[in-house]
Amino acid sequence: MSVTFAQGFQAAGVVAGISSHHGKRDLAVVVNQGPLDVVAGVFTPNRFCAAPVQWSRKAVQDGHLRGVVVNSGGANACTGQAGLEQSTQTAQELARLLEADAHSVAVASTGLIGELLPLDHVLRGVDDAFEHLDDGEQAGSDAAHAIMTTDTKVKTVEIQGSGFRVGGMVKGSGMIAPQLATMICILTTDAVVTPAQAQQALHQGTQTSFNRIDVDGCMSTNDTVILLASGASEVTPDIEEFNQAVAEACASLAHQIVGDGEGSSHDVDMTVIGASDERAALACARAVASSNLMKCAIAGNDPNWGRVISSIGTVPESIAPYDPNKVSVDINGIRVCDGGKPGQDRSLVDMTPRHVDIVINLHAGESQGTIWTDDLTHEYVRINSDYES
Amino acid sequence: MSVTFAQGFQAAGVVAGISSHHGKRDLAVVVNQGPLDVVAGVFTPNRFCAAPVQWSRKAVQDGHLRGVVVNSGGANACTGQAGLEQSTQTAQELARLLEADAHSVAVASTGLIGELLPLDHVLRGVDDAFEHLDDGEQAGSDAAHAIMTTDTKVKTVEIQGSGFRVGGMVKGSGMIAPQLATMICILTTDAVVTPAQAQQALHQGTQTSFNRIDVDGCMSTNDTVILLASGASEVTPDIEEFNQAVAEACASLAHQIVGDGEGSSHDVDMTVIGASDERAALACARAVASSNLMKCAIAGNDPNWGRVISSIGTVPESIAPYDPNKVSVDINGIRVCDGGKPGQDRSLVDMTPRHVDIVINLHAGESQGTIWTDDLTHEYVRINSDYES
Repeated sequence: MSVTFAQGFQAAGVVAGISSHHGKRDLAVVVNQGPLDVVAGVFTPNRFCAAPVQWSRKAVQDGHLRGVVVNSGGANACTGQAGLEQSTQTAQELARLLEADAHSVAVASTGLIGELLPLDHVLRGVDDAFEHLDDGEQAGSDAAHAIMTTDTKVKTVEIQGSGFRVGGMVKGSGMIAPQLATMICILTTDAVVTPAQAQQALHQGTQTSFNRIDVDGCMSTNDTVILLASGASEVTPDIEEFNQAVAEACASLAHQIVGDGEGSSHDVDMTVIGASDERAALACARAVASSNLMKCAIAGNDPNWGRVISSIGTVPESIAPYDPNKVSVDINGIRVCDGGKPGQDRSLVDMTPRHVDIVINLHAGESQGTIWTDDLTHEYVRINSDYES
Repeated sequence: MSVTFAQGFQAAGVVAGISSHHGKRDLAVVVNQGPLDVVAGVFTPNRFCAAPVQWSRKAVQDGHLRGVVVNSGGANACTGQAGLEQSTQTAQELARLLEADAHSVAVASTGLIGELLPLDHVLRGVDDAFEHLDDGEQAGSDAAHAIMTTDTKVKTVEIQGSGFRVGGMVKGSGMIAPQLATMICILTTDAVVTPAQAQQALHQGTQTSFNRIDVDGCMSTNDTVILLASGASEVTPDIEEFNQAVAEACASLAHQIVGDGEGSSHDVDMTVIGASDERAALACARAVASSNLMKCAIAGNDPNWGRVISSIGTVPESIAPYDPNKVSVDINGIRVCDGGKPGQDRSLVDMTPRHVDIVINLHAGESQGTIWTDDLTHEYVRINSDYES
């Protein structure tokens, strides 16, 4: 169902001939049919943000947007003025069809950095997608397929609230990072909300989802999360429930990204408890989650808690105060490290399930935080060394 | 020649039965025969520093040391009071043989974290090594072999100064990090220097060598660099020349570590020029050098400058001010990115040589810095997922 689960939205995903994979759907359009045209957006903090990000950041600024064009097959990043011109013309094309201002259309692109898009293909793709716009299940699915790159699975979400709905789609598997990812996420809702409410919900939702995943510690030039609200349900939601629904949608999509981490064989919940504050917990969890040695150990079904300990030992005391002689580590429920020393026998740990739970107790306070990551496999290297060559 | 290149040193490397690899030399002893017994040390900043590091940090504190015991086959890290007791007894054993105080002996260990050493094997190994102490070439080579773990090559250095010598050995290939590494380095010199001079030379030397390599961004619990000075040449060196010789020895060994990076197929010099200051240059170089995506691209002979750009884009402006529209990237001499946009055709880049030169010009100042790293290959994953299992 994806973006068409909420009322008031039409979508399409078409083969525009942008991707080098012949016959792959590579351009999606999502249109908000109202009555509201509320929007909120969160974008990459990367200083080399791509042309579509530069365009869309401005487009969503006034809190109103009619539609989004997303293409795979090219990131349109590091393409200078010519790239910005391409994003502008893409937005203008959909705006023309919608009889709207260009700034009421956002654009997102994903793929190789440093190359311009085949603009004529993009523009024809927009026209074609516009022809095929539909509010049905198939249209939502086509759009979700069209934004995929190295993704091996289509990733969508549907949340039913009290009289309102939140739907969405995301692409992303490699290059997923402490701060967003090569990730494009379009969320839709038919709740009646203001731009400020939408922005608040999206900000909170991304903080506890996309900003908590770490596949390979890289941060993309093109990360984009957009939430469109149509008001078509005519329901003004309880704002807590609305925030919760958006956060749930984000968390579901973030988990799907980790589950589709390039070539991964395990999903890992890296949880730090007993921290002095949440920042300390997350800093320690991130340090372990970004350790290649740890990720390789997990790929080899090895409950190597020494690599957990080495990693949290690199976090400065000023950020995460703790006493190394009090730290414990549980892997899949077995306390392999207790008080900074060996605990139960590591051979008791069953590493065969796909899901791995690592819980680190700093014994330094009451706060906690979790980072979701995956393991580092041969397959990751294969995918990312063969991406272009 | 390794540690026996300088006059006044004896060494040995023996099979003590600590390593799980049957018949591998796994214990080395280096003894300073004077007339001086000067020492300097640099140790891991990891907060879970291993028992031998805790012991040795104190042992070198007064600037004097008679000998060092190094074992592979076990890190003696996260082993609590019992581990500290093992390091103490190991030092005491060599001290007894040297008729010296226990605090005039340092200890270093490398291998798996979280397990105690087979102490009887270690102590018998110290006795055996003491019996075999010799100042010849073979003894230096044996010692260098005994400290190896996943290293595929023995790593030694010999620097001839004006009337004095610096020799050394190092182990380390995986887990090599922004701040030192699972790296144990023993340097020897026959120059006449004070403890303060030795410490100054070693501090400078490590800053521009071991602290500038990044194989996988991990920082070990056991990193140890020790410089012993015997004064046996009776030459009081020009202090600049001495610092330079120690720095050269460190740089050579650091390069050898990168060249032996676990399973690597390329060595990479990641150089940032045109930076506002050295800190900015190194922050940008480290950001790229620690990118798994970049490392995979290089393994695939792919001059993917988009991944260079993405990585420097993650460095905050407060640390490295630059204008994204002015940045250029040269890979093996080809300017693939110019002014933040595509430059020469990437197909012009020859990625077949083992050595890869990446030069990033921020056009924001006159400072520069280089980080040495390697690529991320299938072989890295294999070595590090099979290490224990």
